[in-house]
Amino acid sequence: MNLGVRARAMGLACGRLPTGARNGIGDVPGVGVGHRTLIEGNVRTGVTAVLPHGRNVYREKPVAAAHVLNGFGKSIGLVQVEELGTLETPLLLTNTLSVGTCATALVRHAVAGNPDIGRETATVNPVVLECNDGWLSDIQALAVTEDDARLAIESASPDFAVGAVGAGCGMSTFGFKGGIGTASRRLNLDGTDFHLGVLVLSNFGRSGDLRLPDGRLVAPGGGRGRATAEKGSVIVVAATDIPLSDRQLKRVVRRSGVGLARLGAFWGHGSGDIAVGFTTANLVHHDGTAALATQGVLNENRIDLLFEAMADATQEAVLDALVAADPMTGRDGHSRPSLRDALNHDPSPKA
Amino acid sequence: MNLGVRARAMGLACGRLPTGARNGIGDVPGVGVGHRTLIEGNVRTGVTAVLPHGRNVYREKPVAAAHVLNGFGKSIGLVQVEELGTLETPLLLTNTLSVGTCATALVRHAVAGNPDIGRETATVNPVVLECNDGWLSDIQALAVTEDDARLAIESASPDFAVGAVGAGCGMSTFGFKGGIGTASRRLNLDGTDFHLGVLVLSNFGRSGDLRLPDGRLVAPGGGRGRATAEKGSVIVVAATDIPLSDRQLKRVVRRSGVGLARLGAFWGHGSGDIAVGFTTANLVHHDGTAALATQGVLNENRIDLLFEAMADATQEAVLDALVAADPMTGRDGHSRPSLRDALNHDPSPKA
Amino acid sequence: MNLGVRARAMGLACGRLPTGARNGIGDVPGVGVGHRTLIEGNVRTGVTAVLPHGRNVYREKPVAAAHVLNGFGKSIGLVQVEELGTLETPLLLTNTLSVGTCATALVRHAVAGNPDIGRETATVNPVVLECNDGWLSDIQALAVTEDDARLAIESASPDFAVGAVGAGCGMSTFGFKGGIGTASRRLNLDGTDFHLGVLVLSNFGRSGDLRLPDGRLVAPGGGRGRATAEKGSVIVVAATDIPLSDRQLKRVVRRSGVGLARLGAFWGHGSGDIAVGFTTANLVHHDGTAALATQGVLNENRIDLLFEAMADATQEAVLDALVAADPMTGRDGHSRPSLRDALNHDPSPKA
Amino acid sequence: MNLGVRARAMGLACGRLPTGARNGIGDVPGVGVGHRTLIEGNVRTGVTAVLPHGRNVYREKPVAAAHVLNGFGKSIGLVQVEELGTLETPLLLTNTLSVGTCATALVRHAVAGNPDIGRETATVNPVVLECNDGWLSDIQALAVTEDDARLAIESASPDFAVGAVGAGCGMSTFGFKGGIGTASRRLNLDGTDFHLGVLVLSNFGRSGDLRLPDGRLVAPGGGRGRATAEKGSVIVVAATDIPLSDRQLKRVVRRSGVGLARLGAFWGHGSGDIAVGFTTANLVHHDGTAALATQGVLNENRIDLLFEAMADATQEAVLDALVAADPMTGRDGHSRPSLRDALNHDPSPKA
Repeated sequence: MNLGVRARAMGLACGRLPTGARNGIGDVPGVGVGHRTLIEGNVRTGVTAVLPHGRNVYREKPVAAAHVLNGFGKSIGLVQVEELGTLETPLLLTNTLSVGTCATALVRHAVAGNPDIGRETATVNPVVLECNDGWLSDIQALAVTEDDARLAIESASPDFAVGAVGAGCGMSTFGFKGGIGTASRRLNLDGTDFHLGVLVLSNFGRSGDLRLPDGRLVAPGGGRGRATAEKGSVIVVAATDIPLSDRQLKRVVRRSGVGLARLGAFWGHGSGDIAVGFTTANLVHHDGTAALATQGVLNENRIDLLFEAMADATQEAVLDALVAADPMTGRDGHSRPSLRDALNHDPSPKA
Repeated sequence: MNLGVRARAMGLACGRLPTGARNGIGDVPGVGVGHRTLIEGNVRTGVTAVLPHGRNVYREKPVAAAHVLNGFGKSIGLVQVEELGTLETPLLLTNTLSVGTCATALVRHAVAGNPDIGRETATVNPVVLECNDGWLSDIQALAVTEDDARLAIESASPDFAVGAVGAGCGMSTFGFKGGIGTASRRLNLDGTDFHLGVLVLSNFGRSGDLRLPDGRLVAPGGGRGRATAEKGSVIVVAATDIPLSDRQLKRVVRRSGVGLARLGAFWGHGSGDIAVGFTTANLVHHDGTAALATQGVLNENRIDLLFEAMADATQEAVLDALVAADPMTGRDGHSRPSLRDALNHDPSPKA
Repeated sequence: MNLGVRARAMGLACGRLPTGARNGIGDVPGVGVGHRTLIEGNVRTGVTAVLPHGRNVYREKPVAAAHVLNGFGKSIGLVQVEELGTLETPLLLTNTLSVGTCATALVRHAVAGNPDIGRETATVNPVVLECNDGWLSDIQALAVTEDDARLAIESASPDFAVGAVGAGCGMSTFGFKGGIGTASRRLNLDGTDFHLGVLVLSNFGRSGDLRLPDGRLVAPGGGRGRATAEKGSVIVVAATDIPLSDRQLKRVVRRSGVGLARLGAFWGHGSGDIAVGFTTANLVHHDGTAALATQGVLNENRIDLLFEAMADATQEAVLDALVAADPMTGRDGHSRPSLRDALNHDPSPKA
Repeated sequence: MNLGVRARAMGLACGRLPTGARNGIGDVPGVGVGHRTLIEGNVRTGVTAVLPHGRNVYREKPVAAAHVLNGFGKSIGLVQVEELGTLETPLLLTNTLSVGTCATALVRHAVAGNPDIGRETATVNPVVLECNDGWLSDIQALAVTEDDARLAIESASPDFAVGAVGAGCGMSTFGFKGGIGTASRRLNLDGTDFHLGVLVLSNFGRSGDLRLPDGRLVAPGGGRGRATAEKGSVIVVAATDIPLSDRQLKRVVRRSGVGLARLGAFWGHGSGDIAVGFTTANLVHHDGTAALATQGVLNENRIDLLFEAMADATQEAVLDALVAADPMTGRDGHSRPSLRDALNHDPSPKA
């Protein structure tokens, strides 16, 4: 497996907490990520799937929460996540105009695994999140198919590629090539090791605003020119095996905004900045018959540890996407350089 | 034009305020509604489109707001409505599992009218709302196509059918056949007449809980049996030509919950009860270049008049759907009787 | 103990669910209510305290939630309830301009019982809710003292007076004398009996809009005249011993709006309509040292039972306040008649 | 007038936008700030008042909005700000346990200026925000009186002291002495100069986490030891003369979180981080009789300029508080050093 060049390998570590073994969302047991990448003609796009566990998600719904940092976004599924505090499908990430197709793909996937949907039992709430890759890709092509979404789901693994892959194929960040990045933190609670993992679809930030953990500003082409607006978006997916209520999860994922701010973003008007999180430690059983149940929760006096981990892992996951992504030329000759190349010409942070 | 039998014709008027000429959402100048109805084999479904005005909605975005009474629902587009307070596509209503297809149809419709989307300008936020018609229709068939959605949009008119049509084709309400209903109220402000119009996609309520405006409880089959859960949903769309801010609109559409409660609902767990509203009096111009602009707003000391109109029109629009809908037999022989028939056997409210 | 004339004794029962033994919030084990009533000169006001349990609330914080139906209100404490999902003081209800004094009284009460507050441990979040009794009382007098608040807390009991007492002393509802009312429902889950209890501070509704459970409209003075605005407010406090998460509780208390709507309210512009709920089944321990814990939750497929109970008990608690309250004359000769008197002249609902 | 040593004078400027003439919230025409500082025995506390304009705030209500970054806070008044989008009193800032007293003081102040409150017209919504100064001050003393609040209001001026004054007297930030700070940015729209001004009550951040704009970490005592929790709070008040709707204002003040994150905060669990903003360009007239009115709004395509200004000014205002504050010893000999002293020993950022 080739995860690509990682941010840490370039000296771009964030915070003081230890990482998990993979320094990725796959450090949370059961969590898998799959990609489908589409590069052809003017198309640079794809789908990325995040599976909370390897079983039937509709039957065993992880407790979940979302937080909208800036709602210039076209996701589907968050209304029900807010009301019920659970996920019941894998999460799909894709380009803005392909949300409908991916939602339908999730419906078909859920029905295939649960033939009682819409007949003997309720319907299903697909959750799809998006960024706009229109600078590098012909987004009007609506190139993503239901098959692409299915293939992304089916290829999920705890080990997966980062950089310009899957939904990240055509994304941009602070004027550099963006894409998919990941990071994790290992947290010890009551003597047991747990993990908080983050995956980002990174497509935000004005050229010239990127700040590295050591304080340096880095811009493409040495900083000539400045984009007039932050028109991208960033999706942050958090997974954990720490028992949390949906309210606690919401508080945790909100701290993704801290990581983004440290990188130089101010959650721009045109950026759909959304964080979604789930815990594999609390599963709501679709077919449960008992009226009363119990859930694990965190002693909230300890939640700062998770806040810190969330901020750090978000910040690092974005850098991870930037470092892993190769430069790309796409639609109409538009191109984005690689942060890795920029750093290799000025390697001081590795020292 | 045949609007079908109306609630008022059966003596089911709500409240003390005067109606508009049509007693429908089409009383708001420029607003049109179109249907596409699908009845074949086990399929009883469709699409209903609400157009806020007859021009390019992406270029002239009506100020809008949504309120989620109960979020067991799978709509798309509300995140951006909440952040920006505008609509930029027609509203589509359909069955739960066809939201993705309708969203894609709205994307194509917007791109066709605005070829700069995702290229020289931003992307587009399709808004689709839904109810579950799975009792009468084979919802797994995913029978709605992008063409159906387009045809619904293209057939929009201020005069339109109510009852078991469009997205309302397979819906149920309090054990009766539900569907599409509408109502309006005429409101005088500063000497000028304005309108508040409501359209509902009605698919909620337990059998036995329906209460008519005169206080009578009415149940199918004389009230034998009782559904175990409120598993439907109801979508309430409000339109007005009164100048309102998005915050004021949100306050107004929230009062849809009052109308639903008067009918006997308690916004059941399994019911996705969502209200969306827009005003044609405030349009945000996509290509506006001036930094500063003005918007009309209501003196909030007068907003009770709109609250009352919203509650009354929602209540009456649901009754309108029930009265207009013919009885229907659908999937696997499932059927729903007509409230109109029930009232005709016991016509006391007309007296 | 004389609870006063109850709504049920006048034939005004709501819904189909059984009540608890007291048909009051005191049916939830441990919950107590105390009043302090101030009648002197032009003053008709007071304080009502709701204690979630008989121990130190700061040390054992009940899981809690609030829902704002209409935020024209001046409560204190809801920001933290929303963030943390717990209460840490008794709830106080009072008139609008006395919130500050009651908040300070709660601070002193908490510090007296927890001398480490603001020194070795955190500060404290007092929760005070209010309605405007300015029609019958000289609200500018700021007549409520910290001692009054303390005395209300100290007099708490599961059995308590209803009607024009405590914070309800000077309140009005639908043109009648309002005040404090209560109701409860007994709910069986997994073979065990639980209770949901409601207490209202009722001060809302336009004269002429009150609708009894049998559908009759009742107005003071036979309905002559009509108030021009709904300027009151209503506070709904719900207590239960059913294990619920804060999110579940929030869903439950939101259904107070259903009960109010059935009574004829549309949550008027000038009415601060707020519901707060807590469960005694989940206590968060201030001094807990373990990082992980468990909480009881409800199988959400069963929550409709609680929704129905909440709607019914809210509706009945308001009627309870109206029936219990004697007519009152207050500030500058302003007066409110009694619904009980009106019904006794036209006793049909008892039949 | 002595504003104290300012952050800019120490080389701590944030961002690229120009400041107003005062680099303070008083650059917004009409806005004034007043302090009342209490230092005696173990008490180190006070009150700070922010007046949106020099006239009757109850009669001319500025459009306003609030955003809760982390709701571990005890403010009063935000429910109504959220519902109605206006302020109707000056803002008061104080210590956590004095919110009740300050609320009552605002009530008396409003009644004195508007004798019809609670009689012929509505009541009044006092807005008070707070931080916990319990480390340096005996917060249990409840030392703030209504007179103190009144004196703070009466001393309001566009020029005012920063540092350990008013509500900031006993506050701490990142282990240093915190307090009151301010900053402003000048923004040109359609050829006219406007201002966005910020005032902070700064009392947040773990020792060791403070990051200066040049990337350096600075800690008291050279960074020995680390606080175990972020237990403070920070209140951010924004004022502008740019016409904005309440929704737009809310989006703007939310970016205060960016400024705080850049400084090293992650909006800790125990920190009540709240931002409130108002615009003097839109006043809602309490006695307006026309049903319809107009408000100025911003072309939202330009709002990034305000987002950037808000993030930068918040960041700088906190540094302003830190630089201005002298070291202080308070309750039980607890003390906080001055960032200014720390920087003067290591003056590199001035170069």
